Amino acid sequence: MPSEQILIIGGGPAGLEAARGVADLGYKVVLAEARQFLGGTPIAENYAALTHGMRDASEVMGEMSAAVTNNPLVDLRLNSRVTACSGSAGEFRVTIESGDAGDVVDVGAVIVATGFKHFDPGRATQQYGYYQYDDVLTLQDAEAMLKERKFVRPSNGNVPERVCFIQCVGSRDRHIGNEYCSKVCCGIASKQAIEIRQLLPQCKVFIFYIDMRMYGYWENEIYWPAQEQYKVNYIKGVISEITMKGDRLMIRGEDTTMNRPMEVPMDMVILSVGMEPSEGTKSIASILGVVQNKYGFIETPHGSLDTVATSVPGIFVAGSAAGPKDLDDTIGMAGAAAMKAAGLVRRLAQAQLATA
Amino acid sequence: MPSEQILIIGGGPAGLEAARGVADLGYKVVLAEARQFLGGTPIAENYAALTHGMRDASEVMGEMSAAVTNNPLVDLRLNSRVTACSGSAGEFRVTIESGDAGDVVDVGAVIVATGFKHFDPGRATQQYGYYQYDDVLTLQDAEAMLKERKFVRPSNGNVPERVCFIQCVGSRDRHIGNEYCSKVCCGIASKQAIEIRQLLPQCKVFIFYIDMRMYGYWENEIYWPAQEQYKVNYIKGVISEITMKGDRLMIRGEDTTMNRPMEVPMDMVILSVGMEPSEGTKSIASILGVVQNKYGFIETPHGSLDTVATSVPGIFVAGSAAGPKDLDDTIGMAGAAAMKAAGLVRRLAQAQLATA
Repeated sequence: MPSEQILIIGGGPAGLEAARGVADLGYKVVLAEARQFLGGTPIAENYAALTHGMRDASEVMGEMSAAVTNNPLVDLRLNSRVTACSGSAGEFRVTIESGDAGDVVDVGAVIVATGFKHFDPGRATQQYGYYQYDDVLTLQDAEAMLKERKFVRPSNGNVPERVCFIQCVGSRDRHIGNEYCSKVCCGIASKQAIEIRQLLPQCKVFIFYIDMRMYGYWENEIYWPAQEQYKVNYIKGVISEITMKGDRLMIRGEDTTMNRPMEVPMDMVILSVGMEPSEGTKSIASILGVVQNKYGFIETPHGSLDTVATSVPGIFVAGSAAGPKDLDDTIGMAGAAAMKAAGLVRRLAQAQLATA
Repeated sequence: MPSEQILIIGGGPAGLEAARGVADLGYKVVLAEARQFLGGTPIAENYAALTHGMRDASEVMGEMSAAVTNNPLVDLRLNSRVTACSGSAGEFRVTIESGDAGDVVDVGAVIVATGFKHFDPGRATQQYGYYQYDDVLTLQDAEAMLKERKFVRPSNGNVPERVCFIQCVGSRDRHIGNEYCSKVCCGIASKQAIEIRQLLPQCKVFIFYIDMRMYGYWENEIYWPAQEQYKVNYIKGVISEITMKGDRLMIRGEDTTMNRPMEVPMDMVILSVGMEPSEGTKSIASILGVVQNKYGFIETPHGSLDTVATSVPGIFVAGSAAGPKDLDDTIGMAGAAAMKAAGLVRRLAQAQLATA
């Protein structure tokens, strides 16, 4: 007899939305989250406001978590990892380990929502000195400071007068093996630039970019206000090196619009690091036997026509476990995955009844 | 007693995916399409291959249509328009007119999937001479030619030697009132550039752009091959005028990377026109009483956290009726809308049972 219960792996935005959706359709959910808390990367990494609606991350994730923790159809398992899986669509047997205890559950379908990790700028981009200079940060370092509403130079605690973002660190880069664009970094840098200007109106903010990928409404909702209302300076250029000059950072590169070399002092530099598959995504793909693409994200072989199906029938993916996604993508995919997983277990149960 | 039937308005990619999804969850669908055929804009406008998976549009839309036309849970109404709506979530009464006949149906929820229309380049961009020169085309004109695999100069039937695309026609433009980015035009121009180079290996192809918005996997799947394998020439520049010189088009503007004026002959120019709300989207928004944004697209007031809810509970939106969307967005939203609409009618029916 096929199971009508659905396993969701990961309790970030994708997993929470999928869990709420499946329960809303009347099906039971087992939600396994490896951390001791729900909310995923926005909570683990202390995100400030979420793009592009600018709502407070803790508030949003709190609402999404509450919809799941208070739901009688959701069997929530924190501090829990999926360690084995056998069977096929309708009849998966999954081992979930929680601390020392293990448990085997029967589920009809699985939704993988194990997310991404931020690119580590020390790995192959040493010219930016992330592990060398205190005032060189990543987007997530800056995000945590903006959440505290205290944005100062880590090296001396002073308020910065000049801050810049360097885009595409770890993305669009064959040298490090990540040819893809990470999709959200242009928008998040622009959002942070606005937040810095709100907090420190005297601080000059620069964004060095290749292409500003402010697609759709990010253009009018974030990019135009950043330029016109908040006077963020966007400079098409390539930064090739960061050094120290006195107590300031000196960035060197080329302004590709003005077609000239530049050497500019900055108090803080923020590296717009891209997305890579999380360790959880890579290990769960292997445990479940779903195909990964060359970057390690979970492959969605049907492309745009079915953005949540994996290579294994009955196993779906939602959010950035499948590649660089923004929050709109993630929430849309989670809803679609909930629909497909519930539709599948319903269909299998009906087929079983018809042959009984 | 609330109705568990769901009305879907529009039979393009969003409407077809939503209809299949709702039926898969076991709920009845009334699918109203104004045209005499299913498939939406990809069929009406003779699209060739769909981005970014490059599958044939007729084949894809044929599969999506078949899943709905053969479905006993889908009441398909072609040549049908929704002309009135009253009631509220769970108990909408909707008038559907099909030719001379009218019908009133009770539905618990509504999914609007009425799509976009292509920007008309004659309205406010006369400098490009779309209505003046035969060899100035739009993306959809080029698409229809590529579908026929016959790409020639409309003025004289000759094979072109030099073709260029001009990006952001009708988008990112305050002058014409469309500040937003239309999201897909960079990808579609790049896809068409590849198709032209495949068909006519001797033809030089240029794309004049502000920012190449090849977000996520469009970067590695389309943009890199376009440059490296198909030798498409991407030039950051602004084209301000098109005139004739002999029997060729002469484009004038500025190469903003080289920082110099340019005047270049072309055999054909393709205007990468953006998205505007379709007439159906604007009229249905008014009939249903859902709030539109300043551009006329249907507003989604909950932003990234709920990309399919409109201002009216029980009325959902999927696809480009809500703004510029790519196919991934559209299919994700359609799945999410199917889940939310089905979840809502289920919840309302249960509440009714509980009080009965």
